[in-house]
Amino acid sequence: MAMRRVASTAARAIASPSSLVFTRELQASPGPKKIVGVFYKANQYAEMNPNFLGCAENALGIREWLESKGHQYIVTPDKEGPDCELEKHIPDLHVLISTPFHPAYVTAERIKKAKNLQLLLTAGIGSDHVDLKAAAAAGLTVAEVTGSNTVSVAEDELMRILILVRNFLPGHHQVINGEWNVAAIAHRAYDLEGKTVGTVGAGRIGRLLLQRLKPFNCNLLYHDRLKMDSELENQIGAKFEEDLDKMLSKCDIVVINTPLTEKTKGMFNKERIAKLKKGVLIVNNARGAIMDTQAVVDACNSGHIAGYSGDVWYPQPAPKDHPWRYMPNQAMTPHISGTTIDAQLRYAAGTKDMLDRYFKGEDFPAENYIVKDGELAPQYR
Amino acid sequence: MAMRRVASTAARAIASPSSLVFTRELQASPGPKKIVGVFYKANQYAEMNPNFLGCAENALGIREWLESKGHQYIVTPDKEGPDCELEKHIPDLHVLISTPFHPAYVTAERIKKAKNLQLLLTAGIGSDHVDLKAAAAAGLTVAEVTGSNTVSVAEDELMRILILVRNFLPGHHQVINGEWNVAAIAHRAYDLEGKTVGTVGAGRIGRLLLQRLKPFNCNLLYHDRLKMDSELENQIGAKFEEDLDKMLSKCDIVVINTPLTEKTKGMFNKERIAKLKKGVLIVNNARGAIMDTQAVVDACNSGHIAGYSGDVWYPQPAPKDHPWRYMPNQAMTPHISGTTIDAQLRYAAGTKDMLDRYFKGEDFPAENYIVKDGELAPQYR
Repeated sequence: MAMRRVASTAARAIASPSSLVFTRELQASPGPKKIVGVFYKANQYAEMNPNFLGCAENALGIREWLESKGHQYIVTPDKEGPDCELEKHIPDLHVLISTPFHPAYVTAERIKKAKNLQLLLTAGIGSDHVDLKAAAAAGLTVAEVTGSNTVSVAEDELMRILILVRNFLPGHHQVINGEWNVAAIAHRAYDLEGKTVGTVGAGRIGRLLLQRLKPFNCNLLYHDRLKMDSELENQIGAKFEEDLDKMLSKCDIVVINTPLTEKTKGMFNKERIAKLKKGVLIVNNARGAIMDTQAVVDACNSGHIAGYSGDVWYPQPAPKDHPWRYMPNQAMTPHISGTTIDAQLRYAAGTKDMLDRYFKGEDFPAENYIVKDGELAPQYR
Repeated sequence: MAMRRVASTAARAIASPSSLVFTRELQASPGPKKIVGVFYKANQYAEMNPNFLGCAENALGIREWLESKGHQYIVTPDKEGPDCELEKHIPDLHVLISTPFHPAYVTAERIKKAKNLQLLLTAGIGSDHVDLKAAAAAGLTVAEVTGSNTVSVAEDELMRILILVRNFLPGHHQVINGEWNVAAIAHRAYDLEGKTVGTVGAGRIGRLLLQRLKPFNCNLLYHDRLKMDSELENQIGAKFEEDLDKMLSKCDIVVINTPLTEKTKGMFNKERIAKLKKGVLIVNNARGAIMDTQAVVDACNSGHIAGYSGDVWYPQPAPKDHPWRYMPNQAMTPHISGTTIDAQLRYAAGTKDMLDRYFKGEDFPAENYIVKDGELAPQYR
């Protein structure tokens, strides 16, 4: 199956003992490409900000550039079901661009249908909307704009920690409801200072979060596949915890900063949540499916989780009846943290850069690859 | 008038050329005192947290201690109007304790009526609810628990900056309203990184805020009566701006960290707000009366102010029809930032310590004095 993806022009084969079949660089065949972008629709908001590049209307700001090179560029927000716009283009698209904020779910079935598909680009970070194993088996390249919105997400996580610790939302709701009851807020409002904060995962986002937490004088812990080198660890001021559950039992606040993989899917189930401190606060801007949806609802209802905030859900968009909308002490939003205007400018530029390299047959920045030469990036294995 | 306040026991007179009449240390006359505390009522919340000391019911946790020493301790939330509970005790109380969260307004008229009054304690920081000039003229001592909630307020300010910059609230309201519209949030959501943040006032709270802002890679500015020494300035990474209006014109985000004084009252009026950048975000946890109420409403309506967040109002509690409740892009709460549970533990302990020193005729920590020996602390002059 992979062979039909091999570029017809001289692919520079590079020997690699691990996966010989796919030892090639991604290189576009000459001629016009069909590129499909799936982005959220902005309607009246599209024109409100010239830098609002990440919506379907503004289409990453690359339409003119792509069309001037003779490529076809289809952009749609319509991505679900057998009759959706995306589905129509699956059989002959060469490149599919999507974002985590409005993900085009690329299943094994869609990959099978997509005979011309070579490249799946995520404008942003997090490519779990793609069946990565199927993509690897099919010889596709999957790449993200690594780093494009790590700062955006880390800032947002710190905001959510503070919103939960300081019990912001009940106070704001009093204001808009014409009320004033300081006690109803204060009896469960705390300072962040002195609390124990643990991050599950200390990759790019987790580290940026820890750096921003440092002046708050917390007890900072992290669990990751890898221990940071001592210098970085000292600089960040966080302590490595090899045993996840041991770390979790110490935390007043748990932040999830791990990709969604087969290993992390549902990792916060009823059993694990029961091991957390009573009254724990959880921030999850990683992926909704890392949590067992109902277990979170139950723990919020019982008070075992005293606050839950994040911008990720499963599925997305979250349906009207998603129970996280209605559970107590939630500070949820739609999937937004990585799609600030600043992030959009960066991931639009990063996507354009990768397309340009693809047309020229050049490598992408190494850290951008999620699937290359039939192999998944380490964090997805 | 001052002379009747002089303690009847040997007051240690200390010569001071500036205000000879008041050159004495505060010292309680022997015998039982009548101490009145004015705190917000917590009702059902009072029993929900054993550390919830700052409410009327739990009364700073000092009742047993005071009564064991033979003092009378009256606590009430009822502080307004001629028939309120507080008013009944004005003629014979010796000490009045209040907080900024539910302030007992101590007017010149009340001071005149309070023939036995010697000491006004603020459990927290900010004593503008007292007519400080009248208190000084009457020879009263006014003192706060300086430092008790500076961290609490600084953390809260950083939360509010992020809530405004990242446009959190519209996203949360979508969630609870069953909606999902990323574009409606994203078109005006930004990263904090790279933005210019200026604090008006860089005292204890302003500095703690700047320290916490440092890892966010902003352009940090501060205006204050005093320039920090260079070492501290470098460590904090903020630039001194001698000219307030020059600084304000550069700021994407303005944070108010100055006490309410005759000079700062209404300083953000229509004219000054007009000089701010269009689309500026303002965070004010200092005092509501530093702003011209209607000018803020008008600028939020016009979009000149793109977001306003704070926990301070004038008056407090804010009436149901206070226009800040209903203006667009506000992220207001009741006055809460300095009354977290952690802050309550600190200001309850600090108040007890000052009472203990008062009974023993000892000085308070120097930084706690707001009015002493007929003089106002520098920040209130």
